[in-house]
Order: sequence, then structure tokens, then C-alpha cells
Amino acid sequence: MDCSSSAASIGYLAYKRFCVKDRLSRSMVNLHIQKDNPKVVRAFHKEDLGDEAVYCPCWRSKKFPVCGGSHTKHNEETGDNVGPLIIKKRET
Amino acid sequence: MDCSSSAASIGYLAYKRFCVKDRLSRSMVNLHIQKDNPKVVRAFHKEDLGDEAVYCPCWRSKKFPVCGGSHTKHNEETGDNVGPLIIKKRET
Repeated sequence: MDCSSSAASIGYLAYKRFCVKDRLSRSMVNLHIQKDNPKVVRAFHKEDLGDEAVYCPCWRSKKFPVCGGSHTKHNEETGDNVGPLIIKKRET
Repeated sequence: MDCSSSAASIGYLAYKRFCVKDRLSRSMVNLHIQKDNPKVVRAFHKEDLGDEAVYCPCWRSKKFPVCGGSHTKHNEETGDNVGPLIIKKRET
């Protein structure tokens, strides 16, 4: 094998090892929450919400299911633009 | 430069070119929705919700902000486990 084909082989193996797996896991939205649960559904009764409920948009909240502000760091680090989902009582 | 250092250089450049950028963009939660908006906040009045409101958990819904079922394909393709956020009226 000459030098360039060795380089190509090494490059390809490194790509497979370090990138493909990384790409798959990175494309997940939820990296850590309830990973033993096949589908994390959050369900609440409208009547139980207070004046304002603020839900996590980024799946990184330490207070999940509610927002803990982690999206701010996530947005800064990745260039993302997610913000919380807010259900509030109409002001009267 | 000998062969092994050439290989290392090529590998590093390929890594930078194909992986680092990819990793950053992949780590975003929201890939397509309102990318000109610095922070996408969904806010609703409790009084305006019907018997059941089902919100998108994956930022991939074609009916965003509500769930269009895209999380099912997303979960299958990536091994993720996200499900919708549901606010419903208590059954009486």
C-alpha cells in the first residue's frame, strides 16, 4: 500500500470511529432524560396549572419537565434558538 | 514530511472539515424552525386551549408549534425517545 492509500485508510477509519457515532448521538434531541423510557410524554391537566407554567424546550433542564433555563447555555454553545413553552392565565 | 505525518495531517484536516462543523450543527435541537428568530418562545393562554393541546417535542413538526407526529420518525432514525407535551382538560 502506498502512502496516499494508507492516509486514506487511516482517515476513513478515524472518520468512522469518531464521527459517525458522534453524529448519530448528537442528532438526538434528548441526550439524558429518562433514556430507559421509550417515549417521554409530558401530560398535565389544565386545571392543575397555576398562573404560569414554563416547560423545558431543550431537554436539558435540571428541573425537567419544567424549564430551568438550560436552553440559554445550550443556545450560546450551539447557535441554537430554542425557548420555553409557556402556558399562562389570561390577565384580567 | 514523512508518510505518517502526512496521514496525520490529512486526517486532522478531514476531521476539522467534516466533523467539527457537523457536530456543532447536529447538537442543535431546532434545525429549521424560525432560524431568524433569536429565541423561539411558544406562549399560550390557558383559556384558549381546547380539551387537549398537543405540542411538538422535537422541533421537527410540520405543524409547529403543535405536534405533527414527526418525533416518531426522528426517534426511529436517531434512537431518541422524545414525545409530545400534552395539556388536557380533566375528564369530569
